[in-house]
Amino acid sequence: MKILFSPTSPYVRKCLVSAHELGVIGRVQLLPSNAHPINRDREIIANNPLGKVPTFFTDDGLVLYDSRVICEYLDTTAGGTLFPRSGAARWQALTMQSLGDGMLDAALLARYEDVTRPEAQRWPEWRAGQLDKVQTSLQHLQAHPALLGSQADIGTIAVGCALWYLDLRFAELGWREQYPAVAAWYAGFSQRPSMAASWSL
Amino acid sequence: MKILFSPTSPYVRKCLVSAHELGVIGRVQLLPSNAHPINRDREIIANNPLGKVPTFFTDDGLVLYDSRVICEYLDTTAGGTLFPRSGAARWQALTMQSLGDGMLDAALLARYEDVTRPEAQRWPEWRAGQLDKVQTSLQHLQAHPALLGSQADIGTIAVGCALWYLDLRFAELGWREQYPAVAAWYAGFSQRPSMAASWSL
Repeated sequence: MKILFSPTSPYVRKCLVSAHELGVIGRVQLLPSNAHPINRDREIIANNPLGKVPTFFTDDGLVLYDSRVICEYLDTTAGGTLFPRSGAARWQALTMQSLGDGMLDAALLARYEDVTRPEAQRWPEWRAGQLDKVQTSLQHLQAHPALLGSQADIGTIAVGCALWYLDLRFAELGWREQYPAVAAWYAGFSQRPSMAASWSL
Repeated sequence: MKILFSPTSPYVRKCLVSAHELGVIGRVQLLPSNAHPINRDREIIANNPLGKVPTFFTDDGLVLYDSRVICEYLDTTAGGTLFPRSGAARWQALTMQSLGDGMLDAALLARYEDVTRPEAQRWPEWRAGQLDKVQTSLQHLQAHPALLGSQADIGTIAVGCALWYLDLRFAELGWREQYPAVAAWYAGFSQRPSMAASWSL
């Protein structure tokens, strides 16, 4: 198995953390890539017309994207339990994944506003609106700490990767002070070997 | 079942087309909402902290988002076949959904650039990069027309809703002239009663 890789992509990280939890990380080869929203990487596009990472190659020739599809494929292939198979547990885990991914989508748009867009074309209200999505999501988790159990599943992995990305790019938010229940959960979850691992080419 | 609704949201439309295909559209009540990336709708946030539509309420009290989760829930609840259960068919349909959703994500960001952002803060390269994602995706479908079968599944529904949105917001792209194989497919697919239906509160 192979994955088009970027060390700072939180969606690539979701896939690698999942592979690590499933015990198959050693079977996933990392391939270099240069995804960018303006200067689009034509080598990625040749395999994934959206030009995004992660893009994933199975051993039997399928090309899969995006991170949700790749993570479920890894779980199925490894016979894992990251995706509950049915019932309320499945819908709750998938919705928690949507929450984590939604926090990341918003944080990434704020990041593009901060560093990719020329300064004269930045719109503070857009950045504030995106980061408000992160804040209301953290408020929700703080108010319902039971939503985040100690188990690794696709929901907790997605939220864990979102918090990892906030630390990487928005340390100034100081989210731990405002959301102590979320901070307490992450203090434990981030100690998992899968989350503590670092990857580079 | 209830869904927070906007008539021009392509992700809401994905859910309603799916419900129509599954024969359960009459059981889904539409609720008004005013999702916006800057002036965030606090009534949506009370149920979905990301403040986005679609947000969905099951009859037994679960709140689900986003469209991928809602569509799979509808398919499972109705005993449908929009999501192949296993094997390569599942990964291919899910990846096609990612492609359709990715086209929509890009088109929506171009739309926000065009109408939400103040004119002085618009960045033409950003808009061009997003619409280039749409173009390379259409090129991919044009080059591999067998990817789009005549069946309604979550992949074809997602791509169909993406093309619907291009017609709604980016008619000037003239995508049918450039991508005749995609146009031929959509000419048939858009005739399905689910796709031809219109919804309003």
